[in-house]
Amino acid sequence: MKIGILGYGTVASGLVDIIDNNKDKRDISIEGILVRDVKKHEHRKHADVLTDNIEDIFKKDVDVIVELLGGLHPSYEYLKRAIENKINVVTANKDMLAEFGGELVSLAKENGVCIKFEASVGGGIPVLKPLIESLEGNEIDSISAILNGTTNFILSKMYDENLSYDEALKQAQDLGFAEANPEADVMGYDAGRKLSILSTLSFNKRIYWKDFYLEGINKIEPKDIEYAKQLGCKIKLVGRSKINNGKVNGYVRPVLVGNDDIISKIDNEFNIIVVNGDFLGEVSFVGKGAGKDATGSAVYADVLDIYDNRLNNVDAFIKEKVSVDKVVSSECKALIRFKKPQKDKIIQIIKDKFKEAKVIAQDDELAVVVDAPSECAINDSIKFIEDNNYCEDASKILKLS
Amino acid sequence: MKIGILGYGTVASGLVDIIDNNKDKRDISIEGILVRDVKKHEHRKHADVLTDNIEDIFKKDVDVIVELLGGLHPSYEYLKRAIENKINVVTANKDMLAEFGGELVSLAKENGVCIKFEASVGGGIPVLKPLIESLEGNEIDSISAILNGTTNFILSKMYDENLSYDEALKQAQDLGFAEANPEADVMGYDAGRKLSILSTLSFNKRIYWKDFYLEGINKIEPKDIEYAKQLGCKIKLVGRSKINNGKVNGYVRPVLVGNDDIISKIDNEFNIIVVNGDFLGEVSFVGKGAGKDATGSAVYADVLDIYDNRLNNVDAFIKEKVSVDKVVSSECKALIRFKKPQKDKIIQIIKDKFKEAKVIAQDDELAVVVDAPSECAINDSIKFIEDNNYCEDASKILKLS
Repeated sequence: MKIGILGYGTVASGLVDIIDNNKDKRDISIEGILVRDVKKHEHRKHADVLTDNIEDIFKKDVDVIVELLGGLHPSYEYLKRAIENKINVVTANKDMLAEFGGELVSLAKENGVCIKFEASVGGGIPVLKPLIESLEGNEIDSISAILNGTTNFILSKMYDENLSYDEALKQAQDLGFAEANPEADVMGYDAGRKLSILSTLSFNKRIYWKDFYLEGINKIEPKDIEYAKQLGCKIKLVGRSKINNGKVNGYVRPVLVGNDDIISKIDNEFNIIVVNGDFLGEVSFVGKGAGKDATGSAVYADVLDIYDNRLNNVDAFIKEKVSVDKVVSSECKALIRFKKPQKDKIIQIIKDKFKEAKVIAQDDELAVVVDAPSECAINDSIKFIEDNNYCEDASKILKLS
Repeated sequence: MKIGILGYGTVASGLVDIIDNNKDKRDISIEGILVRDVKKHEHRKHADVLTDNIEDIFKKDVDVIVELLGGLHPSYEYLKRAIENKINVVTANKDMLAEFGGELVSLAKENGVCIKFEASVGGGIPVLKPLIESLEGNEIDSISAILNGTTNFILSKMYDENLSYDEALKQAQDLGFAEANPEADVMGYDAGRKLSILSTLSFNKRIYWKDFYLEGINKIEPKDIEYAKQLGCKIKLVGRSKINNGKVNGYVRPVLVGNDDIISKIDNEFNIIVVNGDFLGEVSFVGKGAGKDATGSAVYADVLDIYDNRLNNVDAFIKEKVSVDKVVSSECKALIRFKKPQKDKIIQIIKDKFKEAKVIAQDDELAVVVDAPSECAINDSIKFIEDNNYCEDASKILKLS
């Protein structure tokens, strides 16, 4: 089988290694690798097929185009053209899928080719294929996941070594886990895009990532971690989406996760995806969410599926977008911190409003854990307290139930 | 697509429910269900296609035969005949695969049909397909797993409620988790068969289940659990196999698992399979290891793969059997208990033999944790102590590293 690869970054290197490593088992020939600057890559494997001209790839009459350029453009245009030319495509590009997934999947169906994107969620973890193929008989009603290794690494460092957010971010950047501009990771955008792909496939409705409630980890303080420990919890950036009577609710946000929850065990660069199906019950997938070889392994699996003619449909991407409820409307617990508080007043209000409210600290601030009928009830109380100037500033972190 | 189902027990009921539940999405017609006694099932769904005569199933010209009878015979004969008649087959029968897997897979290849058996390992957890298809580019070098829900339930009860083995087994039987004759579960045979299927697929060598070291949980005492807690561990029936320079080592046995290990988090009827690939690193699959609906969901996924023509090869089953080393030959830790000990003598021997040895209890018995260069070194010391009558009885439990 003849393939063309667009891009020669980290994941592409991993893919090339795996293809070379399995040469005796699978006859896959790399016909072209598109790079911006051929000179820069001349010392690398397969230097003879490097090109900076996309036309060279299309000229080679390849069976599969693997897009690993990242970004929206020109990835989108290249994939569109490939599909229109009836070439199967593989991509790891969650940003592009989040924007143009519906259009590309629809186009692929029209042209009788396949678009595969296992590596776009959970790096090397086989999760999309099991979800699409192995769980097909199930109605899936919820997903809970850690989908971003960078933030999980930062939170693990803060928990294990009592670092501040800035210190942990710096370490992540020094080690190459976080980018110079870490916004997409730390603000939850990356996890949101992945959650939207998972939710779209699981709920069979098109769910747009920006419709989730997205909150980053950049405001997490050592004091939050301290409280979490006191409560027998860790703080994790969790992506969660649920469907109930056709209504979707979802977020990516830092939450408190109890130490007895499997999600709390997933540290550093590891990811977990927990899916709940009506027949199957809860099933979890855990592994490295990023990295050259792990992600390369997922891309390679997609290429092999095409090689072996194991294809599947993902109609969900073509469906109409549904609205997503951003607030937790069921019973929930939260840690609330009030800075410069009028303690007695606030405690009274909290105790009046919630069936359970526990004060866990009152030094220069007041920290309480409340048991609320919904997130709105918590927000209302905080607003009332702030409006009356009973504190200077309030923040909350939900607990995963 | 037309299917015939052999057997109408728990898993078959689950399968039938899922097929009926997805009727609007997938056109699968149940042409026949083979039972021993038609009368007994007359009140059930699809009673019109019940039969006690296998010929009725073959007469219907079905596309797939799903074997859910269990046991070796006549399951083996029926599947063989189906394959020879060029009918695809799906089975959940690990006992039969463990015995006749090689022959049936080979026959299926000859006849250009497919034999699928996702439900044979890990109940509803999608693990065989991810292993075969998604991890194909990887060399897998180890598997660690909890593969039997019954024993995991018993061990969880012993840990959580301080029950004796007999009490916990009784509860498991009363709740329908354990059979009247629980031997296959509690002695590790069931887990051994599943581990052999996983290992065969992972290492691409035919591995026979009886070649593993198999030790049951029936000798675990409340005192073992107590020591485990003291050491920050749980006791789990772990199946573990490793390949190193072509040599396979494997066991199913109760081991101490540290509380920080994800395996220790898997309680009650849940299963976990942790696989280590050279590119992917560690990837784990967690879910219900048994049960009508979960297992039915896995069987249904196999049926759909055939429906959608997504097939795969499992050459590994056809390979020659390899020998398996039953003793842990690398560094390992173990808890050793000596009953009626001559304490000073034993402590002296232990301290001389091992670089690290910690006494954790010495009341009416002596309990030590040793750090040994291999399991043989531990066995040798125990034998020496017993031969010299320095204790009445000694037992050991390895710690998972």
